[in-house]
Amino acid sequence: MRFARLGPAGSERPVAVAEDGTYLDLSGITDDIDGTFLASGGPARAWAALDSLPRLDVPAGMRVGPPVARIGKVVCIGLNYARHAAETGAQPPAEPVVFMKAADTVVGPDDDVLIPRASTKTDYEVELAVVIGTAARYLDSPDDAAAHIAGYAISNDVSEREFQLERSGQWDKGKNCETFNPLGPWLVTPEGLDVPSLRLRSWVNGEPRQNETAADMIFGVPHLIWYLSQFMVLHPGDVVNTGTPAGVAMGLPNQPYLRTGDVVELEIDSLGRQRQRFV
Amino acid sequence: MRFARLGPAGSERPVAVAEDGTYLDLSGITDDIDGTFLASGGPARAWAALDSLPRLDVPAGMRVGPPVARIGKVVCIGLNYARHAAETGAQPPAEPVVFMKAADTVVGPDDDVLIPRASTKTDYEVELAVVIGTAARYLDSPDDAAAHIAGYAISNDVSEREFQLERSGQWDKGKNCETFNPLGPWLVTPEGLDVPSLRLRSWVNGEPRQNETAADMIFGVPHLIWYLSQFMVLHPGDVVNTGTPAGVAMGLPNQPYLRTGDVVELEIDSLGRQRQRFV
Repeated sequence: MRFARLGPAGSERPVAVAEDGTYLDLSGITDDIDGTFLASGGPARAWAALDSLPRLDVPAGMRVGPPVARIGKVVCIGLNYARHAAETGAQPPAEPVVFMKAADTVVGPDDDVLIPRASTKTDYEVELAVVIGTAARYLDSPDDAAAHIAGYAISNDVSEREFQLERSGQWDKGKNCETFNPLGPWLVTPEGLDVPSLRLRSWVNGEPRQNETAADMIFGVPHLIWYLSQFMVLHPGDVVNTGTPAGVAMGLPNQPYLRTGDVVELEIDSLGRQRQRFV
Repeated sequence: MRFARLGPAGSERPVAVAEDGTYLDLSGITDDIDGTFLASGGPARAWAALDSLPRLDVPAGMRVGPPVARIGKVVCIGLNYARHAAETGAQPPAEPVVFMKAADTVVGPDDDVLIPRASTKTDYEVELAVVIGTAARYLDSPDDAAAHIAGYAISNDVSEREFQLERSGQWDKGKNCETFNPLGPWLVTPEGLDVPSLRLRSWVNGEPRQNETAADMIFGVPHLIWYLSQFMVLHPGDVVNTGTPAGVAMGLPNQPYLRTGDVVELEIDSLGRQRQRFV
């Protein structure tokens, strides 16, 4: 099942997305798609009501927001694809590398992304985002992870490499700029998804850049959720960005960082497509 | 002026704290002390109404919550006191070191702090916390910082040093454990505070550990707020932990990390006192 949020930033309305792409109004089921909805069986209620949900006539060009509201935190995994670790000059990590993005960096999948004023090294990162459905705390094993996952989405973990790597330690400085986390278009629930087979792709101005599957992750999704739960509590509505494949600007010849007017497109099988203008 | 939030976690009520320590009910002025209250002139409204606020009879032992609700993000500054940088074996940084804590780590000033299950190196850090009052984005100079500061509080930036430093890069892994950011007891508004002169102290089981003033910071508060605003937007209700003085367990002979039953007390002049049991 696919959920989305449509409308101007800050006043999106919740919808389900039918097989044929029709939007179905969820406002009779919930005020919004958020941690409370996800933790309280909201997706099952929506599924049960699917046939009776009113069809929503959406004007062409209606903005798509991030598919989850009131995100608590965005936890990010670094260097989780071997070829990406290699292109950045790093060894594959012995255990997951963890850093954080503030939830206020999250924008819609097609919103403009702001290149920071002093930036010369703004970069894209297509990632599989995991949205947490119920609190995960000290899970016993990776086998327990699935019960805590509400679904998946596309995430662009936009990064400023100079801020991240050349300005006195800790990556967070280059990860938390305004608009640096486009998310969506949909939150897709897990049933029927074969996660490792999902292919992640990105393009800049139409030119292909990244192209691997989630099976290329060093640490897969169940391992990551189990691992993180040993260090922090994952709450309903939290988002985990699971790392990016090779092909970012930092790893390419001549390092073609993003410039004003560049268009970045991201796609993951079954999860839709994003398109951002960098300005 | 001093604000606080009293009551069980998740259902605290907002109060002002009079000069003599009396609690004054703010529920006629605002539902809560949060970013919306701070950004909309709430403190001035509370000040104007001070003489007419009803006195609140508080049962002895009433829990004190964190003085700000719905915190968006907690931005932390590392190695911001020269003697602390030295005790950790680091050089004083050329520019501020930035990392993040999730807002869900914030608890009340006297709440129990949970030592993580696999932890052997849980440590305390008394810090001056800055609470943001209005959005700060690309400030022109440190002189502009004051206009964006709602007030100050005590923060304990609890840290697990093995998770932070010995488990595959990036400090965030040891900074985001459950209950790892006691905050409060009060949010103290800036008027009349001479911030550099404020003395920060901590004790473990009554034994003095940290004792420096905010004047010992390498980068002072105005510089930090200006600096951060070049990399991210600071929103109303965000918190900035400005770094810790020397004297943490990691820097002491025999590294006396916290054990179950230890009691940590923290104090900053004019900002009150915290007391946590580690369990």
